Amino acid sequence: MSAITVTLPDRSTRQVDEGTTVGGLAAEIGRGLAKAAVIGVVNGVERDLVWPLADGDEVEIVTADSDRGLYTIRHSTAHVLAQAVLDLFPGATFGIGPPIEDGFYYDFQLPLGTDGRPGTFAPDDLTRIEARMREIMAEAQPFVRDDIDNDRAREVFAEHPFKLEIIDGEADDPTSVSEPGFARTYENPPPAPKDQPPFAGYPGFIDLCRGPHVPDTKAHLGHFKLTRIAGAYWRGDEKRAQLQRVYGTAWHSKAALAEHLERLEEAAKRDHRRLGAELDLFSFPDEIGSGLAVFHPKGGIVRRLMEDYSRRRHEAAGYEFVYSPHITKSDLFETSGHLSWFADGMFPPMHFDDEGGPDGQDYYLKPMNCPFHCLIYRSRQRSYRELPLRLFEFGSVYRYEKSGVVHGLTRVRGMTQDDAHIFCTREQMGDELRSLLGFVLDLLRDYGLDDFYLELSTKDPDKYIGADEDWEEATEALRAAAEDSGLDLVPDPGGAAFYGPKISVQARDAIGRTWQMSTIQLDFQEPPRFGLEYVGTDGARHTPVMIHRALFGSVERFFGVLVEHYAGAFPLWLAPVQVRLLPVRDDHLAYADRLADRLRAEGFRADVVDAGEKLGNRIRKAKGEKIPYVLVVGDDDVAAGTVGVNPRGGEVERDVHADDFVERLRVETTVQIGDR
Amino acid sequence: MSAITVTLPDRSTRQVDEGTTVGGLAAEIGRGLAKAAVIGVVNGVERDLVWPLADGDEVEIVTADSDRGLYTIRHSTAHVLAQAVLDLFPGATFGIGPPIEDGFYYDFQLPLGTDGRPGTFAPDDLTRIEARMREIMAEAQPFVRDDIDNDRAREVFAEHPFKLEIIDGEADDPTSVSEPGFARTYENPPPAPKDQPPFAGYPGFIDLCRGPHVPDTKAHLGHFKLTRIAGAYWRGDEKRAQLQRVYGTAWHSKAALAEHLERLEEAAKRDHRRLGAELDLFSFPDEIGSGLAVFHPKGGIVRRLMEDYSRRRHEAAGYEFVYSPHITKSDLFETSGHLSWFADGMFPPMHFDDEGGPDGQDYYLKPMNCPFHCLIYRSRQRSYRELPLRLFEFGSVYRYEKSGVVHGLTRVRGMTQDDAHIFCTREQMGDELRSLLGFVLDLLRDYGLDDFYLELSTKDPDKYIGADEDWEEATEALRAAAEDSGLDLVPDPGGAAFYGPKISVQARDAIGRTWQMSTIQLDFQEPPRFGLEYVGTDGARHTPVMIHRALFGSVERFFGVLVEHYAGAFPLWLAPVQVRLLPVRDDHLAYADRLADRLRAEGFRADVVDAGEKLGNRIRKAKGEKIPYVLVVGDDDVAAGTVGVNPRGGEVERDVHADDFVERLRVETTVQIGDR
Repeated sequence: MSAITVTLPDRSTRQVDEGTTVGGLAAEIGRGLAKAAVIGVVNGVERDLVWPLADGDEVEIVTADSDRGLYTIRHSTAHVLAQAVLDLFPGATFGIGPPIEDGFYYDFQLPLGTDGRPGTFAPDDLTRIEARMREIMAEAQPFVRDDIDNDRAREVFAEHPFKLEIIDGEADDPTSVSEPGFARTYENPPPAPKDQPPFAGYPGFIDLCRGPHVPDTKAHLGHFKLTRIAGAYWRGDEKRAQLQRVYGTAWHSKAALAEHLERLEEAAKRDHRRLGAELDLFSFPDEIGSGLAVFHPKGGIVRRLMEDYSRRRHEAAGYEFVYSPHITKSDLFETSGHLSWFADGMFPPMHFDDEGGPDGQDYYLKPMNCPFHCLIYRSRQRSYRELPLRLFEFGSVYRYEKSGVVHGLTRVRGMTQDDAHIFCTREQMGDELRSLLGFVLDLLRDYGLDDFYLELSTKDPDKYIGADEDWEEATEALRAAAEDSGLDLVPDPGGAAFYGPKISVQARDAIGRTWQMSTIQLDFQEPPRFGLEYVGTDGARHTPVMIHRALFGSVERFFGVLVEHYAGAFPLWLAPVQVRLLPVRDDHLAYADRLADRLRAEGFRADVVDAGEKLGNRIRKAKGEKIPYVLVVGDDDVAAGTVGVNPRGGEVERDVHADDFVERLRVETTVQIGDR
Repeated sequence: MSAITVTLPDRSTRQVDEGTTVGGLAAEIGRGLAKAAVIGVVNGVERDLVWPLADGDEVEIVTADSDRGLYTIRHSTAHVLAQAVLDLFPGATFGIGPPIEDGFYYDFQLPLGTDGRPGTFAPDDLTRIEARMREIMAEAQPFVRDDIDNDRAREVFAEHPFKLEIIDGEADDPTSVSEPGFARTYENPPPAPKDQPPFAGYPGFIDLCRGPHVPDTKAHLGHFKLTRIAGAYWRGDEKRAQLQRVYGTAWHSKAALAEHLERLEEAAKRDHRRLGAELDLFSFPDEIGSGLAVFHPKGGIVRRLMEDYSRRRHEAAGYEFVYSPHITKSDLFETSGHLSWFADGMFPPMHFDDEGGPDGQDYYLKPMNCPFHCLIYRSRQRSYRELPLRLFEFGSVYRYEKSGVVHGLTRVRGMTQDDAHIFCTREQMGDELRSLLGFVLDLLRDYGLDDFYLELSTKDPDKYIGADEDWEEATEALRAAAEDSGLDLVPDPGGAAFYGPKISVQARDAIGRTWQMSTIQLDFQEPPRFGLEYVGTDGARHTPVMIHRALFGSVERFFGVLVEHYAGAFPLWLAPVQVRLLPVRDDHLAYADRLADRLRAEGFRADVVDAGEKLGNRIRKAKGEKIPYVLVVGDDDVAAGTVGVNPRGGEVERDVHADDFVERLRVETTVQIGDR
């Protein structure tokens, strides 16, 4: 047997026997690696462990705890999920089942129910499916790859119409090979009966799949949990079949799974939709429609404080506040290009029967504010002396997000952007971007976020307007500002909007999740489309550059993120009720009321709950409402002008003088956001 | 000749000869009255002066300077206008021509122009028409009444299709008799040639008309002026012919006309549309659509100050602030009744192609906020302890006003209401209304309006929902609160919205014009429609009463009214720029900048214009911008820490110490709105 030479990631070479597989190489290197190996990457292509190596191959062994390893584990677990469902629900058929962040899903269509409607899973089906999955894993069924021609594939999947669409290239499956003429499959043959040769001729679960996979259904799998069932449309199209999507999470070790489940539990406790109801902050009434929130009085206070503070800071930074309507004739979005590039994300037009409206045109809800700000810029002649001109609006926009992606306040259909458009000269652009990024980060910190990195989204080659040189100049200006900030900068190729590249600020919250926050976008396109000009120092007319930026992104989304970040326990300056006063008995009520009046006169938000209920219950309720300070007042307090202070999450402090408490509130607020 | 007895308005009786006319009676009473008489009211019906009296008639002589007299003068002048236009524009035809406030109009269709489109008046046609009208007036053509049958009327107006529609009862003419079978006409025969008998057989201008009129085209007419030409649709229907409407004003005396024209001129100077452009406050870009304003930075400052002050006052008065989206599924407005009663005033729906939208329903822009506030009320159980619950929102709503009535900011299609809904028990209703009305008037006064009366709008018998007893109780509660205010109360029968009666506050501005401002509406209907409840002291569920109220009405409209009231010269607290600093020379700039920084640090809005332009020009510009204080600083000021103060509309004051000036600003602001 002759030897071959392969190269490892550290550029070292190794001689192995001809016919050695990826898995064999791992075993030769060491027991630990063999145990951890999931797949290999051979000459840049991911391969199963059974892949035979050739002379000169460059080989990397992928271990279970790496991103690629976890991806494979989740992908293989999805196959086991599909096998379990097809076993347990005869007549069911299956769509696609890719790995996703932290886990995987698979889409199924169950047989019609007795009511003639598509079948749905019952909540406890997850337990049954999970049990069946563990049986399949215990059987250690190998993952066997095969490339077959499409005619054969159509026979194999004759009972599965969604798979037939994938074979015919009509439907897109991210985990399949899409090459004309052949289909790759992975089969999981069950163990042979005791008296038969192993793994031969016993047809098992088979799926269209690019692979690669773990070697068998036992290796690396086990550490998983099915998490939920959701509805989904075949090919994401509301006009196609509605499917049942089963989600799960899978990890490389028991500890990693446990840690993730704990994070999920913590996230569930912080879920802003749940806290929004519990704390009476906002709701999504069915009558209004999906993704459209109403803010209740307490949520209204927080929202207003968020907006007011932002407004004060923006005013101090030279922004000017404007207002624009929520609708416009179609003309405006023709000029801006939105109707060509963004129509899918817009609500349908309002159409007047008499020949397209009173002005001969349909009206649209605005999905963005920028064209309106361009019109304000254009309302009179502008001079270089006015630049940078920074127009700001809390502008409510409406975008038609697909029902599948609408989620609480973090993904809505109606949102209020804290939207500014800065018009400046090309010469001012660099400085403006640098100071802007500093301003944005500084303000985000005041809201309690302080762990950031940046993302630089560049041109989508299939969807952009304008000259390539302009894109390059804009991209470089953004990159320079980003690098100046000292934060990590992650590339996002193709992620830009059609009119220009952007930086987005990614913030990590209290439990380590990343949220996209502020965006800063450069735009050389809209100013000329709108014919925007300024008279320069030379007396000639020039075209300004436009910077789009939103700091919260949307008020709704930022609100949702803050609720989760703080788990509903807003810092003092943002808390809807800052102080609750509880008189021990009715005869302490007058004293409590007087104190509350004093606090209100000092600008604090205080309320009183009278002794109609037991003190213990009232304290419990106030803690449930996550009020920063609960003050209990009794006989001694009335006599001495003191209060008993229960700080949120702290120890009870008795006999605190009222003056001292007021001063403490003042200091705490000032520390949080200054006296700006 | 026998005598008859008639009764005069003072209940005295008078014997006159049989056959005496209204005019004859006036002449018998006195020369002055005869001269002033325009028409009479006989047994409650208006009659021409040639109307013969009968025994027992109750008669009132209407004089030219009374409301009814002016109405008649304007009505008769409209006939003269029509005669003049038909004379001067052969082939023209005419629609309707009623008297209106301060004047009259008449609608015409001119012959097609050479370009095949409907003819339009040229601007100087008004002068020609006015001249022809004066000729007709000089001829003293009598107004001759006739009642003819409809067949004859159709012959007379065979060339005038709009008149034929009126005869056939298809079109509504407020100045015609509408009884089946006959038509009343008024004819103005021209004077006969010298050798012919007077006024006989010479057909003149004839119009369908209920009358009555002045005796001839000379009597009382003359004091008029044609003011403008506008487009109008036949029967107000955008699908029918577009007509040319000529407006004019007419009065009983030269002095009254002059006074009115002066008021018009003053109003034109104050026109908020003109001032809005001159002061760079707002605009209506064509690209967005009619009735949809954008607020520029300076307008944005005023608007925000208006809103902020209102918000602070509302918070202090126990209102809670909420937010709701601008769109909703149709369901919500089905429940509220708006789609049945208010659909005409709404923008058309947004319709999704796939079977009526993602939720099976169309989406609508909201014309009102109330249904959203009902949903917030209903988001959890409510107790009597929470009532009155006062929910407030600056809510932008959209109403499809006909293009003919859209006017600047005072009649728009997109408006932000300062909209509150108060939920209370029936027992609380009276007190709440009383304190509410006081609050409303108090706040309006802070914005500089102080001359009010109230209007009580009651049920439209053809357009209401709910029980009659509820309407009566609501109407009485409003009446009681209105009477308590001590202001004049004017009835407006049939003027209520479909869900309940209302009080509206009418304010007179600086030049005596009346604007409808705040409205307070009681509503027993929506709470049960939405199933709103509260748990009462008895532990049982009850339905709350709902009070709708807007104080500004809409922010846009109130803004427009304030611009006109102040003629753009906003009081200090509302002025977009409060202080402008003008350094005499460049070497005073640093001092001016330091002062501006100090003023800004104290919370005032100050800017500096450097010495790039002559001081005189800069002062003139600042006055044009109606800035309350212009400060000029030169050598002496830099040395002494003083400023030269040019107060708007006042005398220049030199050597004012900067400290004193700051204190003066502080005091002036506090006087205007207190330190609330």
